[in-house]
Amino acid sequence: MTELAFQDQYADEYAHCYGCGRLNEDGMKLKSYWDGEETVCRFTADPKFSGGYPGFLYGGMIASLMDCHGAATAWAAKARTVQQEATRFVTASLKVDFRAPAPTNVELEVRGKINEIKGRKVVVDLTLSAAGKLCAEGSAVMVEIPINRQEG
Amino acid sequence: MTELAFQDQYADEYAHCYGCGRLNEDGMKLKSYWDGEETVCRFTADPKFSGGYPGFLYGGMIASLMDCHGAATAWAAKARTVQQEATRFVTASLKVDFRAPAPTNVELEVRGKINEIKGRKVVVDLTLSAAGKLCAEGSAVMVEIPINRQEG
Repeated sequence: MTELAFQDQYADEYAHCYGCGRLNEDGMKLKSYWDGEETVCRFTADPKFSGGYPGFLYGGMIASLMDCHGAATAWAAKARTVQQEATRFVTASLKVDFRAPAPTNVELEVRGKINEIKGRKVVVDLTLSAAGKLCAEGSAVMVEIPINRQEG
Repeated sequence: MTELAFQDQYADEYAHCYGCGRLNEDGMKLKSYWDGEETVCRFTADPKFSGGYPGFLYGGMIASLMDCHGAATAWAAKARTVQQEATRFVTASLKVDFRAPAPTNVELEVRGKINEIKGRKVVVDLTLSAAGKLCAEGSAVMVEIPINRQEG
């Protein structure tokens, strides 16, 4: 099976994100998929992405993982609901509650659940776990870029 | 004048953060300082830290800048208030509202303002601007690591 990640279906012009863009050669190339009614993204962080203490991820990276996966989940939710191609979602608001340190060098699982879809807005609930232990949870308000957006 | 950044006063054991640790050779080495009653951190992002569109920062990086500067602000606020050395603050909760795209290759200014200090908890209000334009705002709840913390 060669299921395409959500991020690998973005138009080229939207695929440069350091977190999840397939065209960003320096980036992390996060990949998100459906898992039933939820979405999932798995990622193992290099030890260089340490927090203050070695062996644990810095907070900004945890926010990054939840942000990119949240945007991808919103994209997928919209595409499935309206049966037409979504453009790309950007973050209007992100809230992260940190529950436990997240280790580097261990596969992390970020899960998304659709809370609300309303016009161009999608609200996604998110968790980040390591080996089944909850490390962070939160939610993101994502907004779709209008189809005929003019670049300024 | 050779004012020491807050992060350059952390104990070695807490100085490995990818965002702001002086001992993380791969990291961004963010530096935060007092500016009157507020704190400030200036950073120019390499274009590789792009969002979906080239030329603008990915959301996770914006959260990272606010998170590291928030933790440093909490540390400095605590140290100044109690007149004793603070250990290190970790993030309990981070909220970011994204107001406008933040450019890469332009000096960004992250500012912190102390909202509340209560025991080990410090709440910091944060903004991120580029050339005077507000790009993001939010707040962080930071919690100090106990002094005699045992590593497990």
